[in-house]
Amino acid sequence: MSDTLDTLENITYDELQEGDSATYVKTLTEDELVLFAAVSGDVNPVHLDSEFAADSMFQERIAHGMWSGSLISAALATVMPGPGTIYLEQSLAFKRPVKLDDTLTVTLTVLAKERKNRVTLSCDVRNQNDERVVTGEAKVIAPTEDVPEQATATKNYHSALAYTGH
Amino acid sequence: MSDTLDTLENITYDELQEGDSATYVKTLTEDELVLFAAVSGDVNPVHLDSEFAADSMFQERIAHGMWSGSLISAALATVMPGPGTIYLEQSLAFKRPVKLDDTLTVTLTVLAKERKNRVTLSCDVRNQNDERVVTGEAKVIAPTEDVPEQATATKNYHSALAYTGH
Repeated sequence: MSDTLDTLENITYDELQEGDSATYVKTLTEDELVLFAAVSGDVNPVHLDSEFAADSMFQERIAHGMWSGSLISAALATVMPGPGTIYLEQSLAFKRPVKLDDTLTVTLTVLAKERKNRVTLSCDVRNQNDERVVTGEAKVIAPTEDVPEQATATKNYHSALAYTGH
Repeated sequence: MSDTLDTLENITYDELQEGDSATYVKTLTEDELVLFAAVSGDVNPVHLDSEFAADSMFQERIAHGMWSGSLISAALATVMPGPGTIYLEQSLAFKRPVKLDDTLTVTLTVLAKERKNRVTLSCDVRNQNDERVVTGEAKVIAPTEDVPEQATATKNYHSALAYTGH
């Protein structure tokens, strides 16, 4: 949850249990949609131009599918397992378009713990109507130690959030 | 190539051939790294705080892995097949960290054309030292028609680029 990011903590490999679940919630603002176009370079008019998008199959501007992917990444990196996680693999299946002001909930569930601190998690992303928009699986190396306190004093954190008006 | 985005064109399903290849190049600026933290919500200090990152296993600030994923998405959406592509699935394996000022080249290659305009492409992302940083496969529905001319007059395109100083 973005409200709790000032106190980033992690869940170590030993603490994680199969079946454990955690969520991460974020709403798509127009600023974020335009910024995602900028940082990725995907400036397709279906994302940026409301008149063009009105004539498209989606009838309105839609988010980049990979924005939903980036929320899964953020959920892994900030909630479970959290800081210290090393990202190995991700699969994504894009099921439904995401539109402006949609609020997405990422639910991560631990599927399996393997050797060498590897953990496989299912990743389910739903909108505010409980419709699945993205599904996939992640494989990570979970942290083996708690992050030190200074890890949570994130420089540039507030300047990052300022870009999106939070 | 971001220089050519003013004239977005696409490659239709019928025009695509197995073995066809295309590239997309982008350099990671500090602005983009901070913006990706903002739009995803992943504000881990390994991405944002150079002092913290200096003590990490990577020894300096690294990009979010999913930023590289977003470049694959942009390559599919702007270069091959280009506008009108519908994104179905993506797999990603993160092989090496990406650092500030790294220039990544995404190479897409058509692996297979299937029924209902489905196309599978391999996705290879390398840095300026020709080291593979991300690899994966994409499945898309390729466009069946050329995009209309007005599709390239992207509103918000220049405001998107202005965020990252281009």
